[in-house]
Amino acid sequence: MKNKGQSDRLTVQQIANDGVIGIFDENAQIHDASVAYTSSVAHMMLTNEYPKLKFRYRASLLKHEINDALQRIDSTLGQTLFLKSASIKPDGGIVEVLDDHGDWRVILVSEAKYQGKDIDNIKEGVLVGKNKDQMLMAAGNAIERAHKNIREIANFMLLERYFPYVLFLEGSNFLTQNITIDRPDGSVYTIAYDNGTLNRLDRLTAANYGMPINTNLCENKFVSGNGLTIMLQAASIYTKGDGGHWDQREMLDIMISIAKTSLRMLGQDLFKQLTNS
Amino acid sequence: MKNKGQSDRLTVQQIANDGVIGIFDENAQIHDASVAYTSSVAHMMLTNEYPKLKFRYRASLLKHEINDALQRIDSTLGQTLFLKSASIKPDGGIVEVLDDHGDWRVILVSEAKYQGKDIDNIKEGVLVGKNKDQMLMAAGNAIERAHKNIREIANFMLLERYFPYVLFLEGSNFLTQNITIDRPDGSVYTIAYDNGTLNRLDRLTAANYGMPINTNLCENKFVSGNGLTIMLQAASIYTKGDGGHWDQREMLDIMISIAKTSLRMLGQDLFKQLTNS
Repeated sequence: MKNKGQSDRLTVQQIANDGVIGIFDENAQIHDASVAYTSSVAHMMLTNEYPKLKFRYRASLLKHEINDALQRIDSTLGQTLFLKSASIKPDGGIVEVLDDHGDWRVILVSEAKYQGKDIDNIKEGVLVGKNKDQMLMAAGNAIERAHKNIREIANFMLLERYFPYVLFLEGSNFLTQNITIDRPDGSVYTIAYDNGTLNRLDRLTAANYGMPINTNLCENKFVSGNGLTIMLQAASIYTKGDGGHWDQREMLDIMISIAKTSLRMLGQDLFKQLTNS
Repeated sequence: MKNKGQSDRLTVQQIANDGVIGIFDENAQIHDASVAYTSSVAHMMLTNEYPKLKFRYRASLLKHEINDALQRIDSTLGQTLFLKSASIKPDGGIVEVLDDHGDWRVILVSEAKYQGKDIDNIKEGVLVGKNKDQMLMAAGNAIERAHKNIREIANFMLLERYFPYVLFLEGSNFLTQNITIDRPDGSVYTIAYDNGTLNRLDRLTAANYGMPINTNLCENKFVSGNGLTIMLQAASIYTKGDGGHWDQREMLDIMISIAKTSLRMLGQDLFKQLTNS
């Protein structure tokens, strides 16, 4: 049985050997845990692909650091801190790159949320509800908490022209198409994606201004009107709309795509390192 | 026993008679309910104070309306809607004014959140936890959900130069000073405001960029840097930092202050009505 350290070393070696990842666990993993693992693999792949740049991975960010970033912009911001050790911990962690000026810049933040077990329940013939006589479990609202970390990172990156926040969604509360499920008794049951009891995607789309989901929105959009130009910091929201599970490879591709957009947007602050032979 | 309709009529009459509110219920009310009531009183007071302007109060806002507002700014925004009837319902509702162009503009949105019963528990000598042997109950994170409605309204008002969102907090999870409580056995217990088990204010301050709490932040601030000028839409967060309960009169004063800031900011779009004799 490998411990965590051995597993990490093997991954690094594998990347070094052939530039791809070959040791993904085929078995189901806890979803939240796997986004952290996948993000750390993304960190290693970026390290491999851009040997002239320095990257780091971390699991959390102190509120104090966010406050410091806000204070540097304007001294009236970032003034309040009630718990000195307060921090945010996006479950996929934070990947950063060192810029030409010696500052660490965020290039990838990820979170994964699983909500709604209806598909598994129906497959297994499990009825739910108080009297155990319902097919569907009314969805909760806990997902709305996802907005908090998005806002914290948006504040930390208030004057950056990109926003590399990825939210991976999975479960029956985030469907984008109708799905038909075989029940143990041989019958089939169809879940409509727009069933109000289940779907909670609308609780999240404020975070991307109602722009398309399953889309890399890392590069900030600017909109104008009323004499103003506004920069939008939109989270990139990805959902398994067919009720499937996120594959680590799929998540990795999305993470790398977001991180590369960040690196491109940071180009002028990485130029010296990239052109240093 | 008065029904709701009678109660409302009486309030309107009272305002008409002497311009102040005299029928506040002296008894404890459910906090969420009272913010809706207080907000509707604010609506009536504004109607009374500004007879040349038209106001309306509503309990909810459709996601569809938010999407429409976003689409008018840029056609790529406000595209997604999974549940046609999706709406947001800030518990204090929404007050709007009709502008010179016939458009309704939001001037007040309020929510009230109560979290943490420790003060009452200690007063009553109730111990908590699995084994009923703890003085303090570890705080939950449900308050983080407050960010969702703030973002929805921020999107609805994306190009407005003011943001009239008020969040009233109360309970042992939102203290800003140490408080000492008399226990039934005659001893005293002190709750430190910065007890990490309890304090959840840091979970909310992303919504005001760490600017001071208990402050009217309705007029948007602009900050600059990195070649950008950014407009901040900050929620005005008010807390009962001493563990007390919000008095409806106090909430009303704050609501009126926020709404008046909104009206001033909208001055150029209300000018015709205000100067029309």
